[in-house]
Amino acid sequence: MITADRNSNDDKFRRKAISVKEGQAKILPYARRIETEYVSLPMVEGRILAEDIKAPHPFPHFRRSGMDGFAIISSDTAGCSTETPVYLEVVDEIPCGSLPSVALSPGTAARIMTGAKVPDEADAVVMFEMTEASAGQGKDYIQLKREIKPGSNITPVGLELAEGDLILEKGRRLSAGEISVLATFGIYDVPVAKRPRVAIFSTGSELLGVEEPLQDGRIRNSNTYMLASQIRNAGGEPHILEAIADDLTTARQKVAEAFALYDVVITTGGVSVGDFDIMADLVSGEDVEMLFNKIMMRPGSVTTAAVKDGKLLFALSGNPGACFVGFELFVRPALGTMLGMKSPFLREFQAELGKDYAKINNFTRFVRGRLDFADGRLIANPAALDESSVMVTIKDSDVLIVVPPSNRGLAAGETVTVLQLPGAR
Amino acid sequence: MITADRNSNDDKFRRKAISVKEGQAKILPYARRIETEYVSLPMVEGRILAEDIKAPHPFPHFRRSGMDGFAIISSDTAGCSTETPVYLEVVDEIPCGSLPSVALSPGTAARIMTGAKVPDEADAVVMFEMTEASAGQGKDYIQLKREIKPGSNITPVGLELAEGDLILEKGRRLSAGEISVLATFGIYDVPVAKRPRVAIFSTGSELLGVEEPLQDGRIRNSNTYMLASQIRNAGGEPHILEAIADDLTTARQKVAEAFALYDVVITTGGVSVGDFDIMADLVSGEDVEMLFNKIMMRPGSVTTAAVKDGKLLFALSGNPGACFVGFELFVRPALGTMLGMKSPFLREFQAELGKDYAKINNFTRFVRGRLDFADGRLIANPAALDESSVMVTIKDSDVLIVVPPSNRGLAAGETVTVLQLPGAR
Repeated sequence: MITADRNSNDDKFRRKAISVKEGQAKILPYARRIETEYVSLPMVEGRILAEDIKAPHPFPHFRRSGMDGFAIISSDTAGCSTETPVYLEVVDEIPCGSLPSVALSPGTAARIMTGAKVPDEADAVVMFEMTEASAGQGKDYIQLKREIKPGSNITPVGLELAEGDLILEKGRRLSAGEISVLATFGIYDVPVAKRPRVAIFSTGSELLGVEEPLQDGRIRNSNTYMLASQIRNAGGEPHILEAIADDLTTARQKVAEAFALYDVVITTGGVSVGDFDIMADLVSGEDVEMLFNKIMMRPGSVTTAAVKDGKLLFALSGNPGACFVGFELFVRPALGTMLGMKSPFLREFQAELGKDYAKINNFTRFVRGRLDFADGRLIANPAALDESSVMVTIKDSDVLIVVPPSNRGLAAGETVTVLQLPGAR
Repeated sequence: MITADRNSNDDKFRRKAISVKEGQAKILPYARRIETEYVSLPMVEGRILAEDIKAPHPFPHFRRSGMDGFAIISSDTAGCSTETPVYLEVVDEIPCGSLPSVALSPGTAARIMTGAKVPDEADAVVMFEMTEASAGQGKDYIQLKREIKPGSNITPVGLELAEGDLILEKGRRLSAGEISVLATFGIYDVPVAKRPRVAIFSTGSELLGVEEPLQDGRIRNSNTYMLASQIRNAGGEPHILEAIADDLTTARQKVAEAFALYDVVITTGGVSVGDFDIMADLVSGEDVEMLFNKIMMRPGSVTTAAVKDGKLLFALSGNPGACFVGFELFVRPALGTMLGMKSPFLREFQAELGKDYAKINNFTRFVRGRLDFADGRLIANPAALDESSVMVTIKDSDVLIVVPPSNRGLAAGETVTVLQLPGAR
């Protein structure tokens, strides 16, 4: 059944509503850090780094030429001018990736390419355009007409990073920039947090499989696929299990089996047997500790969390909107904490409400919306349809707009708190 | 070799600098729409939809109860009040997923659960709390003390979507919200654009493999792994090929082979044989049309694009910063266009510069930076190190700040154009 956002059954199921922050605080102690595994560099995209990485060597690790030109000893150019040019003998040529083949002595220079190692004796590189070639006695010379400062066009050792510098903090998500750093320092086997294995049960006899033909009075099971996507996006590994039957004994057994095999268990929808809510019963067994079964929020007030064998169970609403929000506010931070992320919660900031929001609430409402950037300002526009049962506006939302309990609506232009949905754009 | 950002070789390689927008415009005609393939729903995450999807049926497709309560015929409550209550006989019970078993007639009601189909004869649902149960003559009755408006607590057919409504436009990236829609409408085999197959060649004899021990004067090949990550993020399928040797004949042959096997070819770094740039030669063959070989930008001014056999070749700088920017400005839009994305370019908007940027440029500079949200405003902070050779700040950047050619720097507080790097946070 689609669990209604209402209070009528609160007494029957002993529901006591707590705030979102209280709910999150109750969950996190059970979101235990998951093991580390080593993954090869080409496969680490999107994974969460499990250890701090320090620079095994400075970067650059040799004095690098910043130009195509000539490596010189700058003191050779002292007093040099158009009237009194200096001639240096070209004694070496250093392409990228090669080492100098002779030591420079005063009065000599080495032709050098951008990125190549500057000879130890040289302290400057002068670009081709500032030199003139000349030859004599079978030797190559360059003519210089200007004094050159020591250090010119040389990237010093360790400009970007010194040996031992913290280069990547654990808990960081690995993307192009981090992968570049790992490759630069030769870290091919990368320590990352294992992906938490998350079981998804859908419940409710009204649900059709996605491939089944439509039937009157029944809807297709869309929440399990939506949740699988959210789990993947949050760094977990989704496992869609068979729907739970409308029978308490079977449901208990299936959930117990899932706890043995997976790190986290999610159900979506209630399980109705007449008016009886099997999920409420499931989370009230002797071996299960109920963390909360009502949150002061809309949608998703019946969002439930419990612990069994030290593992988290989330019972999310069957309403698509409420299921989506319940995941983002409670399951995502749990997975992020298990992965060791520094900021497991949705990014929170202030924005300007783009249009009036008339609905009034006794609970805090998390309204799907879209974040726009206009003239350097952040504008959050609530979706037209935001009922908990509405599915179609999830795809157009990249934020949740936090509307506090209020007996009046909000007007366009008011400042609102906004939670950013990751990966939405 | 690491290609220098300089003008000295412009004449030799016949470089004529054009603007970024001109460069992008030259590329897009060759970014041809890639074929469609069908992918099953659990695997479509992040793929690009290849066809418009229209609703095969209205949603909801039946009149849905928004409450746990009783379905009634509202005219039965005309004139009803505390003094003159109405009694309705409860003749049916409709759990979620079930159909009404008897037709309602005036004076009767059906017990109904949230989400269940409302009987055709009923035009309102009244919540449990507004009724009182009573019984008589072996029958169940509810007592009502208020008039009920037609339509109460019934979600009409098609509230969210009518049959034939465009529900998902082609070119859209598929994430949790879209997947929910596809599941709801029973679309299990989803038409998506094939991932363009992109070959990556690194070039330059100074490059060590990531797993090789460090050597003096040489650096590890980090750009190919960075590019593989960027390609994946842009919707392509990266294929890292063997490094190209410093030999024009072999290089030509390898690149020709790659064009036969892949949709797009990227090289990073030049290929130096003495002062000779093999990449410049490669893109000037008879069977290759050079699109541009110099862009009025920093970093990455030597970014080159060419067409062979109708396929795009990008020769990106070997400098990490320049390689990264060259990909984001030219390769990403090409891949996005091949995938049929509506907005293949980086998202562009205005922000406030967070701190002074002193560097002056004759070309437009794309400065790596970080976007912050503060008091409802967008603040773009340039990275401390943004030279084209600098690798370490890529990982901390989620925007490119566009600094136009200028003989003065920019001051904190000035409005700047910003390009958002996707997937960075």
